[in-house]
Formats: sequence, C-alpha cells, structure tokens
Amino acid sequence: MKILIIGSSGTIGTALTKELEGRHEIIKANRASGDIKVDIGDPLSVKNLFAGLSNLHAVICVAGPASYGPLLKLTDDDFRFSLERKVMGQINLIRFGIDKVVDNGSFTFTGGTASRWPMEFGGAAISMANAALEGFVRAAVIEIPRGIRVNVVAPGWVQETRVALGLDATVGWPAAKVAQVYLQAVEGSMTGQVLDAG
Amino acid sequence: MKILIIGSSGTIGTALTKELEGRHEIIKANRASGDIKVDIGDPLSVKNLFAGLSNLHAVICVAGPASYGPLLKLTDDDFRFSLERKVMGQINLIRFGIDKVVDNGSFTFTGGTASRWPMEFGGAAISMANAALEGFVRAAVIEIPRGIRVNVVAPGWVQETRVALGLDATVGWPAAKVAQVYLQAVEGSMTGQVLDAG
Repeated sequence: MKILIIGSSGTIGTALTKELEGRHEIIKANRASGDIKVDIGDPLSVKNLFAGLSNLHAVICVAGPASYGPLLKLTDDDFRFSLERKVMGQINLIRFGIDKVVDNGSFTFTGGTASRWPMEFGGAAISMANAALEGFVRAAVIEIPRGIRVNVVAPGWVQETRVALGLDATVGWPAAKVAQVYLQAVEGSMTGQVLDAG
Repeated sequence: MKILIIGSSGTIGTALTKELEGRHEIIKANRASGDIKVDIGDPLSVKNLFAGLSNLHAVICVAGPASYGPLLKLTDDDFRFSLERKVMGQINLIRFGIDKVVDNGSFTFTGGTASRWPMEFGGAAISMANAALEGFVRAAVIEIPRGIRVNVVAPGWVQETRVALGLDATVGWPAAKVAQVYLQAVEGSMTGQVLDAG
C-alpha cells in the first residue's frame, strides 16, 4: 500500500512509522520534517499537501493537538486552536484529499478516549475536540464514496508521553501498542468505528 | 427561579417558554426579539447578554444552529458556522455567564441525537457539533464551581419542524414533549448528562 502519514515524527507517529515501513510505501508529512511539510491547522496547507500525490491507499493522521487548561482559563484562541487542528485539520484531509485516495482506501484519524472518559482536570477543550471527531466520522461514512473507509483511533495516555511529562508511567499504553490499533484500522476492513487504544 | 432562555422564539423554545412562564421568572433572549438581543455566534454579543443580569438560577439555550449539507459540498464556512454557533455559542454561555449564575444553578444546552445516531444524509457537520458539545459537558462538569450543573438535551426530529419541512410528521417528538426534558434538566438535580429527547 502507498500510505501518507501525517505526524510521523510524533510519539505515536514514530512507533507507527517503524511498523509500517517494513510493509508498505510510506510518505511522511510533518510540520517541520519528512517528505512533505504540512500545517494541518491551515486549510491551504492541507490542500497543498495533496497537490503532488495520487493513488494513496491510506491516509493516517497522528497529528492534531488540542488545548489543555482549566476550563475557566481557556481562551477563545485555545478553543479555536483545538477546533482548527484536532477537528478541522483532520476533517479537511477528507475534504481536500479524498480524490487522491484509491477505491476502498482509508482514512484513519486520531481522537482520544477523553471524548468519553474525561481527564481529571483541564480537558474540556480536548474532550470537546475528540468527541467532535467521533461524531463527524459516524455521519461521514454514510456519504464517503468508492468504498473508502474512515475510522478514529482513540488513544488514552501514552506511556512515553507520561515519562516526558514526569508522570507515573505505569498508567497508559506504550506507543508501540497504540500503533497496533492504527495498523488494524488501515489493514482491516472496518469503517465508521472509534477504536480505543488506551 | 429566574431563568434566562436563549432561543425562546424557536420551535422548541416556544413550547418550553410556555411551560416555564407559569412557574418561573423568565428572561427571553433571541437574535431579533425578546427581552435581550443576542447573537450566540458572536462572543462579544454573549458577553453583552450577561452584562445587566445577575442571580440567574438557570440558563437554557435552545439556540445554536449547525449546517446541513452533503459532506463533500460543505464549505469551510459551513463548518465554521456550526462550530461557532452550536458549539462555542453554548460553551461561551458558561465562560462568560457563570458568574451571573447562583450556587447550585444550572446550564442546559441543546445538542441532538445526531451525535450518535447520524441523519440519513447531509449531517456530518451537525453530528460533529452535537458530539463536540456532549464531550465538552462530560469534561466541564468536573471543573464547574459552586455546585452549578450542566446538561445537554439532545432532541431528535421535532414534529413541528418536520411539518414545516414537508416531511412525514409521524416521525419525531412534538415540541411540547421535548420541552419536558428541558424542564427535568432545569428543575432536577442531575449534572454532566446527555438527555435524549427523540
């Protein structure tokens, strides 16, 4: 398969790319590295991402941040940042990229279990964004043409992220285990699903 | 109770206001009528809405449209419209109005069953927005101070709306029945809940 992976340099992206590289042709896109530079918060940049591409079998997005912070301290910009990147950044991959995906290809997005299992504190914008993505996908698969599949992988805490933040790393899944869930979404046949990975 | 209702002139709002008026003090806010004019898509207008208010026991929002249309025809503006009104328009009622709500007061928002039960066609932005609101509320109630409650009422089709659209009106709930669900959210004690009304 020819697979475009957006966010290949991140914690999950690195583990996932390592798995994919032995099995498929991989095109890496990141904000500041890889084969193509892309800012998924910028619709024009997402359009440009697909300009030179064709016959993709899968598009995987492991980019798309949302804002962490106390609810009553989150600013207009924090909410906008979350909606533009985590939500529209991924939705725009379908809107602007679907013609570059082959029949029966797939999109695999990154949400999070926080949509349904909120963080202890500070996760209002994150839960909002992750839930938005799940709702979108449930409706979108009704209309997506040519057998193209769309799924959301919903990680919880990733152990490597907790180590980097100085938090108890017995909580969460290692990135390599999270990556296996993306593999199943890409290589399997499901569509319209939210696949918890944490 | 002193209750602010945003969207009192709509289909559900009219039925709900009729129920509330005999039992509570009602302040009506709408885009173009009522006691206060408000455009919930405009954060400044939401701030102004609360400027002259205090000691509210409940804030109910039955406003907040989202864009209907085929997924691959929805524009950047359609998505933005949905996120600014249905999602941020209601979230901003908490952000900018919470200090005007008494201890143990409540916010009641309007989502829709489409978050989990997508429309037959054309509902991708609507499902996205309704789901976003549900995810937000699940996380927000962890942080909301002073015992203030937040719930989402999720209507399905309203019969009066289907009549107006020329659709089969044996599907859906009458607005008066939907209004009863809002009453339970406002007069009851639940918080963090999504209450299906359809």
